[in-house]
Order: sequence, then C-alpha cells, then structure tokens
Amino acid sequence: MRTVQVRAGRPYEVHIGRGLMDAVGDKIAQALGGTCAAAILTDDTVDALYGAKVERALSESGFRACRFAMPHGEAHKTLATWERMLAFLSEQGMTRADVVVALGGGVPGDVAGFAAASYQRGVALIQIPTTLLAMIDSSVGGKTGVDLGGLKNQVGAFHQPRLVLIDPDALSTLPAATLSDGAAEAVKYGVLGDGELFERLSRGGWTEDAEWVIERCVFHKAALVAADELDTGSRQLLNLGHTLGHAIEKCSGLRFSHGQAVAVGMIYAARIARGMGLCGPEVEEAIAAALAANGLPLSAPYGAAELAAAAMADKKRAGAQITLVLPREIGRCELRRVPAADMEKLTRVAVGA
Amino acid sequence: MRTVQVRAGRPYEVHIGRGLMDAVGDKIAQALGGTCAAAILTDDTVDALYGAKVERALSESGFRACRFAMPHGEAHKTLATWERMLAFLSEQGMTRADVVVALGGGVPGDVAGFAAASYQRGVALIQIPTTLLAMIDSSVGGKTGVDLGGLKNQVGAFHQPRLVLIDPDALSTLPAATLSDGAAEAVKYGVLGDGELFERLSRGGWTEDAEWVIERCVFHKAALVAADELDTGSRQLLNLGHTLGHAIEKCSGLRFSHGQAVAVGMIYAARIARGMGLCGPEVEEAIAAALAANGLPLSAPYGAAELAAAAMADKKRAGAQITLVLPREIGRCELRRVPAADMEKLTRVAVGA
Repeated sequence: MRTVQVRAGRPYEVHIGRGLMDAVGDKIAQALGGTCAAAILTDDTVDALYGAKVERALSESGFRACRFAMPHGEAHKTLATWERMLAFLSEQGMTRADVVVALGGGVPGDVAGFAAASYQRGVALIQIPTTLLAMIDSSVGGKTGVDLGGLKNQVGAFHQPRLVLIDPDALSTLPAATLSDGAAEAVKYGVLGDGELFERLSRGGWTEDAEWVIERCVFHKAALVAADELDTGSRQLLNLGHTLGHAIEKCSGLRFSHGQAVAVGMIYAARIARGMGLCGPEVEEAIAAALAANGLPLSAPYGAAELAAAAMADKKRAGAQITLVLPREIGRCELRRVPAADMEKLTRVAVGA
Repeated sequence: MRTVQVRAGRPYEVHIGRGLMDAVGDKIAQALGGTCAAAILTDDTVDALYGAKVERALSESGFRACRFAMPHGEAHKTLATWERMLAFLSEQGMTRADVVVALGGGVPGDVAGFAAASYQRGVALIQIPTTLLAMIDSSVGGKTGVDLGGLKNQVGAFHQPRLVLIDPDALSTLPAATLSDGAAEAVKYGVLGDGELFERLSRGGWTEDAEWVIERCVFHKAALVAADELDTGSRQLLNLGHTLGHAIEKCSGLRFSHGQAVAVGMIYAARIARGMGLCGPEVEEAIAAALAANGLPLSAPYGAAELAAAAMADKKRAGAQITLVLPREIGRCELRRVPAADMEKLTRVAVGA
C-alpha cells in the first residue's frame, strides 16, 4: 500500500492499494478513532458493483452502515439529488458524530461530498473513488458541489475528506472510454511537473503500474492543494487544458467527455504557448503522442469564434482577465493573465485557423 | 463606535455604532480592501425599511449593488428560498471575487449566509443584523443554515463573515415582542458570565445603553466562538436554556417565539441545577426578575413527559447522553452530561411537577 499525505487545514491521508476495498472498514475506524453510523452515498452503477462489499466491510468493522444510490450521470449532479441525499441522512438519524462515505466517480463524489459538507453544517467525509478521474483528481482536495442552471459546480463547498481510499483494482470494471477520460488528467500532471510520469503514460498500457501512476498523480494534486487550499492562486495550474476544454465540452453538447475535452484543451494550450514563444513545437508533439497512446482525441471540430464565446460566457465583465495555464516544456508550466478581449485571437492560434 | 474582534480561522471585526447603516459602504470597502459587486440579500420587511438605504450606501462607495428580498418569517427558512437566492446571484453574474451582504434578522441572515457559503463554493459575507437577536447571536460566529423536514438548521455551513456591522438605531423599528425575544439571549450572556450586564438588563429600559449592552453580548459570543469555532465543546455553553427551550417551541407549535422559549428554558435550567444541588433558589429568582423586566414569560403550559419527548426526538439512540448547561450562580455556568434516560425525571424537576 502506498500513502500520500495531504497537508490541508486538517491533514489527511490518501491510501492506494490493490484490494483495499475489502479493508475500508478498518481504515476508516483508524482514521476516525472509532466507529459510528456510516452512510454510503453512491450511484446505481457503482452500487451494483461495490455497494454491498463496502457496506459489509463497514459492518464487519463495527459501523452501523446504510446506503443510498443516486441515478448515475452528470445530468443528476443537481440540487434535487443532493436534497434526496440530505433527506436520506435525516431519515437515518445521522448526527454530526457520524460519517458519510462517498463511493464512486466524480459525480457521486462531488454530490455526496457537498451533502457531507452541509448536513448539520458538516459531518466527516471519506472518499472511495472508483474511476481514474476521481482517484487522481476529484476525490482529493476538498472541492464538492453540484451544477446549477447549466453552470458546473455553481453551488458547493470546500470540505476536505478525513481519508481517501483508492483501490486500483476498481479500474478493471471501468469502460475503456472512462479510463481514457481519466488518463487525460494523468497526462496533465505529467505536463505540469513530472517528466517521468509523462514518459510512462506515453508508452501506454500502464494499468499494471496503476498504483505508481495514481500515487504520482495524487502527490502532485496534494502539493498544489496544500499550497493553495481555497484555489485562489497556484492551484489554478490544475486548469491546464480546462479553459478551452470546458468550451469544447459546452460546444459539443457533452458529446466530448470532460477528459476528451481536456485532452484537446492541452493541445490548444501548447499551440498558444508556442505562438507566444514560450515553447517550441516539440511540446505539442509530445502531448499529442501521450494522448494518442491513451485513446484520447487530438482535435475538435469547433471554430475559434464559437469556442472563444463559450470560454467567455461566464466572464463577460468589461476589462476582465483570463488566467491561462501554458507549458514551457514537459514538466513545467506557468500561469499567464491575458485580457479577455484577446481570447478570440488566441483561440484562432489554438485551433490553427 | 465600538469594535469587538472575533478570533476565528480568519479574524474579523464587529462594529457597533448608531447611524452605522449610512456608512456601510465605506466600512465594507475597507474590510475587503476594495469594491466589487455586492448582492444585498434580505427579507421583504427589512427591505422596505433599510434596503434602499444600504443599496445607496454601497453604490456611493463604488460597489455595483443589487438586492433580493425573500418573504419574511421562519416558515421561509427553506432550501427553496436558498435556491432562489442562488439563482439570483447566478443571474447577476456574481463571481467568487464578489460579496454577499446579509441584511435583516436571524432568518435572512442564516439563509443568506448559507447562500454565501455555498455559491461557487463560498464568497465573502458581510452581516448587517437588524434585530437584537441577530445582532448579539446569529450574525456572529459563522453558523448559517436552513430548516429541513421540521428540523431547525438541519442543512448549512460554518461560514464566518468578513465583517459585522451593527446599527443599534435599527432597534427602534422593532416590534416590542421582537425586542423582548432578543433580550432573552442578552440575559443568557449575563447568566453565563457577566454579572454587570445581568444587573443592567434586570433594571429594564436599557435601550439608551444599547451600544454597551450589544458590545458586552458580542464580546461574550466572540470569546466562545474563538474557543470553539466548530461547536464541539465549550461553545455549547451558548445552549443555556435551549435544550428545553427548543422543546417548548416544538410543543407550542411556534406560539412561543424562540426568545420566549429560551427564557422559560433558563428558568427550567435553574430549577434542574438547584435540584442537583448546584445552586440555591436565588439563581432562579434573579433570572425570573431579569426576564420579567424585559417582557418575557416565566412559565409554559406543557407537561414533563411531553417536553422530554420533544427534547429527545432527535437523540433517540440507545445510551445517548445529553449535555445540559446549568447555572452555579449568575455569571457562572457549567456543562453537565446526563444520560438521555434521565431527561424525563429532570424535566419533572424543571416544570415543578
């Protein structure tokens, strides 16, 4: 088992180990210093795969366990789903001394995390991520939330988990497309600060090294979270590929998944960086090779005007600036503030128009 | 103007001064280090009295101000009202760099505070309380929330304000009953730790000394918040009169206001303390005199069994313990954990049955 420390307001650990799903009860009891009532909040897909196993592990360790499954999918990342989770916690008589166990991918993790953050003004939260994306990104760092009015994570809270338990064996039940989706974020950590990780991902077929890959990704995420817990500065580096990536997601009407969109967004960031003279063509080439080796797309069929408009939709203020994350080389990126008025011009560079 | 420092995770100040309502723009700009968009969230009653004034003060100081009024009353302290506030913030294009100004009594303060806590995972919050209860209790300490399924503050967050601005002149627009309601909490601070405050309140007619009375109350609240920001220990002293007070509120179907119920709850706490040999009859007599001087009731028409059941409704767990706050003398109280099974017996002592 590998362990990464996260130095947030209240420090916590991320354990990564094959077979850990069967031992979650003991790990949680250790982290909390005892047992209590535990509500497993998950989605229907994950519940069918792991719900009973996690509930059994908790019960065997002395927790009074119960579980609730939301319907799967981003369309259900809503206040309505969150309210049903709160009603469930209330019906089960959960108190501030009890614990919420968020089990699943990013969607149930974010919604359950926000339920834990707000139920009785906050109860302890354990994250058990089951997708690669959730393992290396959303389960670590305390961001929770739901979408509102078409805007992602418009409502939520910073609520750090007390423990994150990652069982890489769960990757074996993921569809290939979902695994690729998470790989885009793994490649991102490589571009941001880890040439060795980048190189391993570029060779493809890395699932046999999944523990190591996940540990490296979590390590980088934890370092950025520790430096900037509330996301007002350096944590913005994690947005590499995301500014135009989100625009691609929007323009595609979600036909591009988040990871696919971020993949293309990283290609675009490399082109903008090259256009500014920050790096040469080799950065884009290396990123493209790493993405291709992980089944990710390298281009999207949307025009510069359309993408720039989508990227700017929530930043209409006169004189606003946009912070871009731009690569200097594989393993080194920087934040650049650019006038919002320049976005369309930069996007033309990005799409190669 | 008087100022109390609150030493929370991020320290902040409470300013208390007559006429402060006209100067809120400058004070807020100072606290935030600049201007931004400011959303005033209030209720219809307070909006009619102070909404335009506060909006003008903000605009004159350079804020882009807008405002939203919820319907007044505890019945509207709901997720539905909170969602309408979030939708308003979203429609107005508010960002994480902007500020929410909660204006009014405890209900709009708590709902607006939770909106500020959760909109885009948290924006800056300023509290401008206009009732005595909000001035000396709910606006300081960071508790925000809404009711759910008949349970008070079942959903919410700890979200400390950046600044609290109290204009005692606002007390002049309060109905007498609402002023009495707040006075119960002021008497509570006296019983907890301030014989001089208690004595002043016991003489009645203290509104000419309102700045001083509010400062003393806020000082005590701030000290308890600083010692225990997340309410897991000594902050529970603030529950003096509240365990059976909440039971009275429930049994009365809200015919007893919160303050009226807490008033009777303090009488009951004094009787339980006397029954345990913690104090003599003079404590109950002094509390009764202070409450009577402020137009508050000294008894309630509910039986011990009914009250004990209401007090225990959300604490049904086998072997549970209840923490009572019991006076030793005026100015000194202590926390006592008692078995939940003893509650009915203690309640019989309380009602004098």
